[in-house]
Amino acid sequence: MIILGIDPGLSVTGWGVTEAFSRDKINLIEYGCIKTAHSIPLGQRLRSINMELQLVIDKYRPDAVAIEELFFFKISKGTMSLWQARGAIVLTISLNKIPLFEYNPKLVKIALTGYGSSDKYQIQYMVKTLLKLKNMPTPDDAADALAIAMCHINSIK
Amino acid sequence: MIILGIDPGLSVTGWGVTEAFSRDKINLIEYGCIKTAHSIPLGQRLRSINMELQLVIDKYRPDAVAIEELFFFKISKGTMSLWQARGAIVLTISLNKIPLFEYNPKLVKIALTGYGSSDKYQIQYMVKTLLKLKNMPTPDDAADALAIAMCHINSIK
Repeated sequence: MIILGIDPGLSVTGWGVTEAFSRDKINLIEYGCIKTAHSIPLGQRLRSINMELQLVIDKYRPDAVAIEELFFFKISKGTMSLWQARGAIVLTISLNKIPLFEYNPKLVKIALTGYGSSDKYQIQYMVKTLLKLKNMPTPDDAADALAIAMCHINSIK
Repeated sequence: MIILGIDPGLSVTGWGVTEAFSRDKINLIEYGCIKTAHSIPLGQRLRSINMELQLVIDKYRPDAVAIEELFFFKISKGTMSLWQARGAIVLTISLNKIPLFEYNPKLVKIALTGYGSSDKYQIQYMVKTLLKLKNMPTPDDAADALAIAMCHINSIK
């Protein structure tokens, strides 16, 4: 089963593709990130995210997509952009008719480290360990995307 | 010149199509709204907005799209949904490569009534008057969409 994890953002969207044979046997297939420049109008940035994400979907044909549930307590230009990027990403997944699963960030942390308040480093360390990688996946956004994919695999019954 | 105005929302997205021959000669072509049910998952709601908006675009072939700039000072589930819907709408416009213009709500009010703090009724009344309609366009969301389209026409030099 191929799972695509996504960490959404307007400037950087991380993605990670894993193949799960069982909960304990998970292989890394590929990871990366989609970057868009601040200087480009919003519409072009969202189109760029859509097109690059479509290439990932066409190449790896995921059976499911996992994305983080986001909630912010403070509003800013950044959070508004992030939500719009998330809308464009969710639409792209939906147009491909791939089942989409949303996970609370705390649940992602618990799934990987057993602890809901673990930090970024602990998450990345567990991604590296569980996927038997030599190095930490970078950037953070791609590591987070892999963590979300693995959280989904962990919650499949 | 065909202008499509959009008032974005996850539950209701208002749209209005106008044809402008000059700043003073504007004809109403059509207006309506796209509704999605709360009970449907987010991805399907965004796909539904995308598909219905695509039908409007295919039918009326707008030369430009005008949409409101949104800013909220309080965050809630509703504002997050609205931003995601807006992201899906902006992506849809961008995939059609139609020029997109964003207007501050205050500017829309000033363009229609000459006053930045005018209320919903005043806006609707001016939409009705300027487009020489017999009745107020309903629902509000469609009237707002027409107001945004007319604000764009007003700001074309």
